[in-house]
Amino acid sequence: MKIALAQLNYHIGNFEQNVSKIKSNIAKAKAAGVDLIVFAELAVCGYPPRDFLEFNDFIQLCTDSINDIAKDCVGIAAIVGSPSKNPNLEGKNLYNSAFFLADGKVKNVCNKSLLPNYDVFDEYRYFEPANRFETVDYKGFRIALTICEDLWNVDDDPMYPISPMNIIIHRKPHVIINIAASPFSYSHPEERENVLCKNALKYKIPVFYVNHVGAQTELLFDGGSMVVNDKGGVVDELNYFEEDFRIYDAGEVIDNDVLPTHEIGNAKLNDDIKFPRIYNALVMGIRNYFNKLGFKKAIIGSSGGIDSAVVLALAVDALGNDHVHAIMMPSEFSSDHSVNDAILLAENLGIKKDIIPINSIYTTFLGALQPIFGDLPFDLTEENIQARSRGVLLMAMSNKMGYILLNTSNKSELAVGYGTLYGDMCGGLSVIGDVYKTEVYELANYINRDKIIIPENIISKPPSAELRPDQKDSDSLPDYSILDKILFEYIEKRKGPKEIIGIGFDESLVRKILKMVNSNEYKRYQTPPILRISPKAFGMGRRLPIVAKYLS
Amino acid sequence: MKIALAQLNYHIGNFEQNVSKIKSNIAKAKAAGVDLIVFAELAVCGYPPRDFLEFNDFIQLCTDSINDIAKDCVGIAAIVGSPSKNPNLEGKNLYNSAFFLADGKVKNVCNKSLLPNYDVFDEYRYFEPANRFETVDYKGFRIALTICEDLWNVDDDPMYPISPMNIIIHRKPHVIINIAASPFSYSHPEERENVLCKNALKYKIPVFYVNHVGAQTELLFDGGSMVVNDKGGVVDELNYFEEDFRIYDAGEVIDNDVLPTHEIGNAKLNDDIKFPRIYNALVMGIRNYFNKLGFKKAIIGSSGGIDSAVVLALAVDALGNDHVHAIMMPSEFSSDHSVNDAILLAENLGIKKDIIPINSIYTTFLGALQPIFGDLPFDLTEENIQARSRGVLLMAMSNKMGYILLNTSNKSELAVGYGTLYGDMCGGLSVIGDVYKTEVYELANYINRDKIIIPENIISKPPSAELRPDQKDSDSLPDYSILDKILFEYIEKRKGPKEIIGIGFDESLVRKILKMVNSNEYKRYQTPPILRISPKAFGMGRRLPIVAKYLS
Repeated sequence: MKIALAQLNYHIGNFEQNVSKIKSNIAKAKAAGVDLIVFAELAVCGYPPRDFLEFNDFIQLCTDSINDIAKDCVGIAAIVGSPSKNPNLEGKNLYNSAFFLADGKVKNVCNKSLLPNYDVFDEYRYFEPANRFETVDYKGFRIALTICEDLWNVDDDPMYPISPMNIIIHRKPHVIINIAASPFSYSHPEERENVLCKNALKYKIPVFYVNHVGAQTELLFDGGSMVVNDKGGVVDELNYFEEDFRIYDAGEVIDNDVLPTHEIGNAKLNDDIKFPRIYNALVMGIRNYFNKLGFKKAIIGSSGGIDSAVVLALAVDALGNDHVHAIMMPSEFSSDHSVNDAILLAENLGIKKDIIPINSIYTTFLGALQPIFGDLPFDLTEENIQARSRGVLLMAMSNKMGYILLNTSNKSELAVGYGTLYGDMCGGLSVIGDVYKTEVYELANYINRDKIIIPENIISKPPSAELRPDQKDSDSLPDYSILDKILFEYIEKRKGPKEIIGIGFDESLVRKILKMVNSNEYKRYQTPPILRISPKAFGMGRRLPIVAKYLS
Repeated sequence: MKIALAQLNYHIGNFEQNVSKIKSNIAKAKAAGVDLIVFAELAVCGYPPRDFLEFNDFIQLCTDSINDIAKDCVGIAAIVGSPSKNPNLEGKNLYNSAFFLADGKVKNVCNKSLLPNYDVFDEYRYFEPANRFETVDYKGFRIALTICEDLWNVDDDPMYPISPMNIIIHRKPHVIINIAASPFSYSHPEERENVLCKNALKYKIPVFYVNHVGAQTELLFDGGSMVVNDKGGVVDELNYFEEDFRIYDAGEVIDNDVLPTHEIGNAKLNDDIKFPRIYNALVMGIRNYFNKLGFKKAIIGSSGGIDSAVVLALAVDALGNDHVHAIMMPSEFSSDHSVNDAILLAENLGIKKDIIPINSIYTTFLGALQPIFGDLPFDLTEENIQARSRGVLLMAMSNKMGYILLNTSNKSELAVGYGTLYGDMCGGLSVIGDVYKTEVYELANYINRDKIIIPENIISKPPSAELRPDQKDSDSLPDYSILDKILFEYIEKRKGPKEIIGIGFDESLVRKILKMVNSNEYKRYQTPPILRISPKAFGMGRRLPIVAKYLS
């Protein structure tokens, strides 16, 4: 029995392209003598389709796609993910299904039981959980066909009352096939390996796992499809961050005796691979955002600071240096080195650059407001006018030239509201909004690994918004090395003030920071979508009320 | 048995205030000889607490609040909603619970079984559904204690496999008490009455129902708590859009023979009450957004058009005329009547007004961009520069004066992307972002019901953004009377193109409009929170991917 795994980059709602990709992979597999080819969860429509699932028209297109693909499944079988209609009156109207296609038609439909509904997931919004568990028999081979989360009910704090494999295993399947749509975070590859190896060992059968690859707006899929033998050893792993296709002999996998390289379920994130991994994920995120929307060129405000420098370097890798345009917009508060650093950076990257000073715009705004403001002193208002003037210029460039503006806010400043709404918070996509400031420096070092691309001065100078004379981030914020640690405990770990203070941080500092985080929810509400690289990013995976009084 | 219903306006996470309100109502009820007082679902923490529920610290504050309130329940019992910890290892960590407090302690805890997870609801994100159903006995009285959605599993298309009352009824309760957090839409009061009356009639016992009142950012709660007898007749209904407290004799309700005023389950929305209802909901939404955030004053860009006029009138009702400031920002493309109409409106409303012409700002931007744009023709770019210059001015006023900027975009333009991101789409709160343009006119007529507040010319002139010479909305969009109907079928009814064309609309027009809606998801992602008055508003209740290819 030859099994092919097809790890593909789908486009949500682009049925024509998704079906075409699936069919060409079926043809390739058939030509190679494959018996069964496996595609990912909800492959026909892309993941996550979100509320498009509420449109009968959209579901009909899914059904039509499956029927169309089934016609190609003669002399070969295919497993393809798609929503399907729940035939029962009771319960939600859809299932999240794995279609087993053979002999030119639908042979079996297996439905997902454990529906993730945490962080970025909303599956119970659309799908009824399956409560029947069966296997698929094909060519004398018995398959436990499961969908993503069905294998993820962890033993020490199970989120669901049942684990489908505990029931399915009684039917004595030869292998588990799991089709998934499991989004990337920098710690996810190890978690995934742990879960798959634990399942293989627990049920003593191999696991064939197929994930999505590619970016869907903020959600990144790293691929990492894999085959695990019944000893929990990883037999093979498909490429990360790109489409891949591999063929396995099921018998050889069953007989395979590769042993785990570490204690089962104990794969740990290696810091040396964290930042290359984040880098690759962000490059893919930018690239797919542009090509799936049909855009080619990016514009980025280049301040001479570390954030815009890292975003520029990422954009150049994603889009090519002739598709990235840097705009410097100095004001009277900008230091000379800022513009010089930004020019040097643009030269290192080989990108187009322009300088548009904002002094005349800034003073014109002040003049227009003078009859109302009178002699009121300089405050945040004037700082924001500068940031917003830059926003207007960048959006004008975006409109006139057909560029997408990339946002350069980092996670630390988004957390505490250290940014200007409609100013530096503008953009179609936030590239590093899930990257803490201290991590931005790590990315800069990684970018400079072979040669200096980001000038040393950009990395070494103290961070500043340069919106008033001699301003430094440290005037308003604690040192990022402390701030980021407190933010991590609150945002990623969901610890409350007492627990964070208990770690050893200063009480008044902790309370001040948590208050800043909570009272700036209104700003994050209007932030562009943020490429998600952590287990807890701002955006769809973190949902908080604006009008609230908890710790604020 | 005397039962009091306390319909209160809670503030999410403001435990001190919520507990204090609950306690003072318990004291008032006790003084009136009440046996049992009923508060709403998740009353201690406010609804919806969203991801605050993932913080142990937050849950502990809920538990502490319940224990604190219980101490006051001596000589009186109280039903109070709060999250509670799931003691089982399996399943989610929390229940959505109704605490029955008596004799100074927690007597019973009933957990919610049917967890809404559609539209604006995310309850399965946090809570394990209950699968045990009991009753509470108190003073010889047997109560079926249910929580909101537990009564909402409709017979013709049940969303859940079970209906808790079908099980509970076997224990022969005397009454149903239902505590709820059921958000407003203009059609919701009738739906709620239908559901409660159907339950009363089906199970042949009275229903005592307590809802939230007040606004939590975009979600509005209209109250409308009520008592229904076992014949499905509405015995009494609490006030809408304000806190209320009423006492009933349970025996009298059981013996009450008021008959339904219409066929059970067939209450229908009367158009005469739709617009007053929307008006009151929006006024409450503005008022609560400000007082819960601790703000008093609003600033609004006043163009002389219908949208800003209606928002100004609503804001004056919500905040008082001395707390609303209108800014007129004419450009070279503004017509004389626009400023004159806006001045007359401000005078009718008795509000402060200022005029800040934007010509000098606009030309300064054009000058700064000229070295890059050269001779490229006038296009959307220049229109957007005007809108964004106004955004910068309004935000500067907001920053300097401590105002909140109210956004004036309507649902029709948000749907098709007829607005400028960071321009007229700025603001802390979108007041009429869930009101179609044709409905905005209805609101204007309602506002003018007793005397002319909105000048006739604002209502009668053709809508225009006035961003280029002689521009009219109808240059880019179909007539709003057609556009709004097509949008309603697509957004509210979730009909696909074939179904909408089947109604009789022009095919190319339908396809063009649906494409505009879908391809402008990126703009709506960055829209301020929108007061929700319809069954399907943009925002948390409508979740769509940005990078998608369906109908776009």
